Amino acid sequence: MSKKIRVGMIGYGFMGKAHSNAYRQATKFFPDLPYEPELKVFCARNEERANQFASNWGYDQVEKDWRKVVESEEVDLVDICAPNNMHKEIAIAAAENGKWVLTEKPLSMNVAEGEEMVTAVKKAGVPNMVWYNYRRIPAVTLAKNIIDKGSLGKIFHYRANFLQDWTISSDLPQGGEGLWRLDVNVAGSGVTGDLLAHCIDTAMWLNGPITEVTAVTETFIKERQHNITGKVEKVGIDDACAFLAKFENGSIAIFESTRYARGHKALYTFEINGENSSIFWDLHDLHRLKYFDHGDDALTRGWRDVHVTDSEHPYMDKWWVPGLNIGFEHSFTHGVADFFASAKSDKPAQPDFQNALQTQKVCEAVINSGNSRKWENTYVEL
Amino acid sequence: MSKKIRVGMIGYGFMGKAHSNAYRQATKFFPDLPYEPELKVFCARNEERANQFASNWGYDQVEKDWRKVVESEEVDLVDICAPNNMHKEIAIAAAENGKWVLTEKPLSMNVAEGEEMVTAVKKAGVPNMVWYNYRRIPAVTLAKNIIDKGSLGKIFHYRANFLQDWTISSDLPQGGEGLWRLDVNVAGSGVTGDLLAHCIDTAMWLNGPITEVTAVTETFIKERQHNITGKVEKVGIDDACAFLAKFENGSIAIFESTRYARGHKALYTFEINGENSSIFWDLHDLHRLKYFDHGDDALTRGWRDVHVTDSEHPYMDKWWVPGLNIGFEHSFTHGVADFFASAKSDKPAQPDFQNALQTQKVCEAVINSGNSRKWENTYVEL
Amino acid sequence: MSKKIRVGMIGYGFMGKAHSNAYRQATKFFPDLPYEPELKVFCARNEERANQFASNWGYDQVEKDWRKVVESEEVDLVDICAPNNMHKEIAIAAAENGKWVLTEKPLSMNVAEGEEMVTAVKKAGVPNMVWYNYRRIPAVTLAKNIIDKGSLGKIFHYRANFLQDWTISSDLPQGGEGLWRLDVNVAGSGVTGDLLAHCIDTAMWLNGPITEVTAVTETFIKERQHNITGKVEKVGIDDACAFLAKFENGSIAIFESTRYARGHKALYTFEINGENSSIFWDLHDLHRLKYFDHGDDALTRGWRDVHVTDSEHPYMDKWWVPGLNIGFEHSFTHGVADFFASAKSDKPAQPDFQNALQTQKVCEAVINSGNSRKWENTYVEL
Amino acid sequence: MSKKIRVGMIGYGFMGKAHSNAYRQATKFFPDLPYEPELKVFCARNEERANQFASNWGYDQVEKDWRKVVESEEVDLVDICAPNNMHKEIAIAAAENGKWVLTEKPLSMNVAEGEEMVTAVKKAGVPNMVWYNYRRIPAVTLAKNIIDKGSLGKIFHYRANFLQDWTISSDLPQGGEGLWRLDVNVAGSGVTGDLLAHCIDTAMWLNGPITEVTAVTETFIKERQHNITGKVEKVGIDDACAFLAKFENGSIAIFESTRYARGHKALYTFEINGENSSIFWDLHDLHRLKYFDHGDDALTRGWRDVHVTDSEHPYMDKWWVPGLNIGFEHSFTHGVADFFASAKSDKPAQPDFQNALQTQKVCEAVINSGNSRKWENTYVEL
Repeated sequence: MSKKIRVGMIGYGFMGKAHSNAYRQATKFFPDLPYEPELKVFCARNEERANQFASNWGYDQVEKDWRKVVESEEVDLVDICAPNNMHKEIAIAAAENGKWVLTEKPLSMNVAEGEEMVTAVKKAGVPNMVWYNYRRIPAVTLAKNIIDKGSLGKIFHYRANFLQDWTISSDLPQGGEGLWRLDVNVAGSGVTGDLLAHCIDTAMWLNGPITEVTAVTETFIKERQHNITGKVEKVGIDDACAFLAKFENGSIAIFESTRYARGHKALYTFEINGENSSIFWDLHDLHRLKYFDHGDDALTRGWRDVHVTDSEHPYMDKWWVPGLNIGFEHSFTHGVADFFASAKSDKPAQPDFQNALQTQKVCEAVINSGNSRKWENTYVEL
Repeated sequence: MSKKIRVGMIGYGFMGKAHSNAYRQATKFFPDLPYEPELKVFCARNEERANQFASNWGYDQVEKDWRKVVESEEVDLVDICAPNNMHKEIAIAAAENGKWVLTEKPLSMNVAEGEEMVTAVKKAGVPNMVWYNYRRIPAVTLAKNIIDKGSLGKIFHYRANFLQDWTISSDLPQGGEGLWRLDVNVAGSGVTGDLLAHCIDTAMWLNGPITEVTAVTETFIKERQHNITGKVEKVGIDDACAFLAKFENGSIAIFESTRYARGHKALYTFEINGENSSIFWDLHDLHRLKYFDHGDDALTRGWRDVHVTDSEHPYMDKWWVPGLNIGFEHSFTHGVADFFASAKSDKPAQPDFQNALQTQKVCEAVINSGNSRKWENTYVEL
Repeated sequence: MSKKIRVGMIGYGFMGKAHSNAYRQATKFFPDLPYEPELKVFCARNEERANQFASNWGYDQVEKDWRKVVESEEVDLVDICAPNNMHKEIAIAAAENGKWVLTEKPLSMNVAEGEEMVTAVKKAGVPNMVWYNYRRIPAVTLAKNIIDKGSLGKIFHYRANFLQDWTISSDLPQGGEGLWRLDVNVAGSGVTGDLLAHCIDTAMWLNGPITEVTAVTETFIKERQHNITGKVEKVGIDDACAFLAKFENGSIAIFESTRYARGHKALYTFEINGENSSIFWDLHDLHRLKYFDHGDDALTRGWRDVHVTDSEHPYMDKWWVPGLNIGFEHSFTHGVADFFASAKSDKPAQPDFQNALQTQKVCEAVINSGNSRKWENTYVEL
Repeated sequence: MSKKIRVGMIGYGFMGKAHSNAYRQATKFFPDLPYEPELKVFCARNEERANQFASNWGYDQVEKDWRKVVESEEVDLVDICAPNNMHKEIAIAAAENGKWVLTEKPLSMNVAEGEEMVTAVKKAGVPNMVWYNYRRIPAVTLAKNIIDKGSLGKIFHYRANFLQDWTISSDLPQGGEGLWRLDVNVAGSGVTGDLLAHCIDTAMWLNGPITEVTAVTETFIKERQHNITGKVEKVGIDDACAFLAKFENGSIAIFESTRYARGHKALYTFEINGENSSIFWDLHDLHRLKYFDHGDDALTRGWRDVHVTDSEHPYMDKWWVPGLNIGFEHSFTHGVADFFASAKSDKPAQPDFQNALQTQKVCEAVINSGNSRKWENTYVEL
């Protein structure tokens, strides 16, 4: 019999919905988990919308104040989908109350905050994880497995980008619900924390520590109407960011992110080139992995287009039959499954706060380099 | 407030799982439906597996005999995921008991059975539908919308195929759980009813009635071990089938299906060529639609690769954000949503039994033509 | 030292240009051939254009009457790029005069004509070839090599199509220069002889004899202005044709061709599915071959996208460096090279007239079946 | 009547072959040029190979010493396909002798040399061009035309890479024929001058001046056997180089090149993102241009895959029919055609030496930044 874990969810945005769905789905497709999540308390500031959300997803209670959630005796796990500037305070309070803690990425507004959070969960000894969900797209997990087998040989290159085009219009305001990602005081940074953080998390997971970076950051639209103040205010986030990086293993890398790449909705791609093999992945076709094996016969060698839907592929034995895709949302479903499967083991699901702090360090070095126009050390220790 | 509709589900295979999931998901992503499904009774012959399935998916009761389900006062809707040779008997009994009836495709073993089923649901006046789920992949629905606007002009060509490769090994047995699709007495036909039926349903939905066909059918492996009898028995199904067709609108078509196309898992593709525009779709990348518009400027004209994940796209406002795919399974979720949204309207969700009978007629003409080696009329009336 | 072979070229259309170029290029990229073509006499009816063409391509003489060419003592080889209805007469006269003979495809207007032509070249003992040029696209030659090694195992399926869209407008006239392909009296047939002939030639080269076919033919636009008579006349060609086929080796096939597939310029594709492997090719990306090997590791198995530009690939050691494509026109350059390399050997370059007659037989069976609406035998003997 | 221009060609490598072919082909496919090249003198050090090359391509004379060529009264134009370290001396001597001068890219070993060369051709007043051939791939020219019409709106991003994998083996020697590109004393730099120079030339042609860069350069294999000295020597070239850049128009960019990207033969790709539209091109499929137009209808908007083979497309009216590709080599054919068409006009074909010097400046800034680890100004003035 699995033990019930009562979830307190904070935040009803896109991620609140994605996580709530994941808790529900994980119990059905991964029926043998030692713990079973139960949607217990939902928390958000707008009472009407909070009630509607809670009712739809089956939460038993609604709270307006997150402190009630982290202190509630009916909550075992706190899941933070609130904006970035609230992660630290909520997470630390939750840990201090002995709750399991999950938070959306990035871990925090900056490294200093992240360090406090790591200290708190360590001290409390509570299971914790940050939702870098792309690790659990089956094709990405497959990439990790291939690399871990050593199939690529010595690695020379890594490249990743995350391209969007949704903020090109200068009429788009900043701030407030749905648009807090454009408000530097709430988001901490722009594309660096929102998008590159994903790329960096995957990159260090697949290819080890990044040791130094040099970056360019750009804010194409300098001022936008602010939804909360009602005034036209300076835009403080990075609209676009590109950086060069060196990895500890001697490989070199380029990373780029923007919300001004017309034609790309959420084009997260990465490629890794090794002595023997190369791998490419693209979020727009998330169920495919491109794999080139130089060991194939010279006449018929070419990039293999792997449709990652067979039961041999990571996670896919839980789903449908070969050829039938699963969607983006199951990266979260797999996150729930892995987190609960390992919550009390000595190999907890990653990235935990400690691990995600390393991504925070690279993000901070990138932002710093954008300002200093110099190479910056990352001080990462994986 | 939505009214509860208590579901009696018959069959725990791939489709039992897909449908159960769809009922659960529809209530969350389509919260405004007039009816809300409630998983009530589950029925399958293997008691242990039935109990496990029911427990996992949250059914209240388990039955071994489908007659108990269709007669139960606690069931409003009967969903038939049992093999093809049971569709008729269950559906008619369910209708006679006033239940709403949904059945997996194909409607029946043959046209004669299908006609009885249509008569039964009409007489009973109960909402009914056949699960030709591919109509509700957003990209396919988008194709329908484009065609309905008249964007293609006069249609010249239609082509579709459904290619798989899972039965190439002669060691694969036929019959029994998981393999009843190879047993002609249970399945009625091979790829024609299993795969081409999907292609035909979509084709007539998009392009109108098929009037005549000429086919070739082939059984590459003539004998296989039968899982139930334990004996090597003649294989009665069509392993592969291809046919030429004429549509009422003057366009001509090719269709092909096989389980012997090495490298293809579930490659359902269709293409339609009109005077002004053409459309192509592929199940392996189900979130994309290819669209060619001859009206585009000559210098930059080319097939457009539409990533069907924007909120303007059919169904997609219910899901995530642009660029993020949903999976195959939500073709069923959308089916549930559409069925309940229109169950009592004068425009019920399609294909209902009457509509699906037309696909059955084409399938039967195809099988007949494979035997007669002649062009066969389909007698379809849409 | 290579021996000069003096070429008499008849016809200045697209193919006259393509062949003239090929003779010039072959001598540069295949410098070790035993024979070296020399552009000697050019023949076409329009004197001004003939002079211009001859001057541009370096022919020494111009003739208006093809009889002068086939009888000229300064001509060793006659290359027929005149319309289909002239192939027979010119080819037989050339053979009777001891000339080497090459003709554009299809061999002839029909099987009866083709048989006369085969008899003539055999009697004369002159080297001969029909320009089914796609065999010599490097990717297609590679497909042949892979199949000949037995890599595919037992073959189950073959499918090919050749889709164009250039005759959709009803304003397009028929007949005369540039448009004789729409005039049945000059072309013999429509897409069957023009496009499907290519597909059939490749198919039987790769997969052996086709034994029977059933076809549908269609003429979408029934009447068109005739450029020569000036009158609106009935269109006698097939605008579109699709057929089912059986091969001697037990595989089944679909073929389709049309000039009404909006969005496709010259989409010749073929796919062959064997027990172990499958191959796909597409003229629109002629330098790529898709190859699926079921023997690859299950986790990383996928269609390989082979960029056929390495020196190991057929013909490619003669050209540039890996990654750099050659164009369509070099299928002819390779044809010249192969023809001259083997002109006097006991393994002459194929297809010679005898071999191309088999394709003519299938074309004729296809046209007949379009009329008879029955399966027709092809009587092919490869 | 066109005037004959007698060509003196220096160097028989890959480029000597490509250029010789281009001169021959241009006269056939562009028959109306005011000048007609005539292959007159060929020069290379290895006498036997030089004779063979000259004989094959039809040069009248052979010289071992390039000084004879630049001084010959029978030569009007000197084409330099010798290694980079010889460009300056030959080009200046040729100009001083009043010859027209073309040189392979990059212009020179460094900016200082390039400035001398520009001064020389200006002083002599002779037509001159550098063979940045990719500008004349029809799809790339089409990109230029689209951009020049202003279709993209304000430009935000440019990205380009040129990835190869041919030097991964440490057994590969450096130096001497075929491998001088690995010898820094002959090549000047590694991938920066060989590959990134192409990317930079195209980028500034399409998007204007690059103003500053920051780069990382890497030499993965530190020592290689030298073919000429016979000793294992330090490798002085950059095996890989990536850089960030700013353009004068405010857009930001990433560039990357390597010979260690397993699976890529000659993957030159570029993408440019504007407010309204985006464009992508890939040398591996050089006949295709991807174009995204945000102005398309929201429901059917997607990247258009333009098959650049219609007569409306740049240069393509000279070649075959829609759907039929031309090869890489015709980027040179088009270069010959454009150069001769405009040699005496006031709008000579670009890039001339002056224009190519700007690319040299960026290359030098990139190499400098790789050493200095700082942002470097480029001092480009287009």
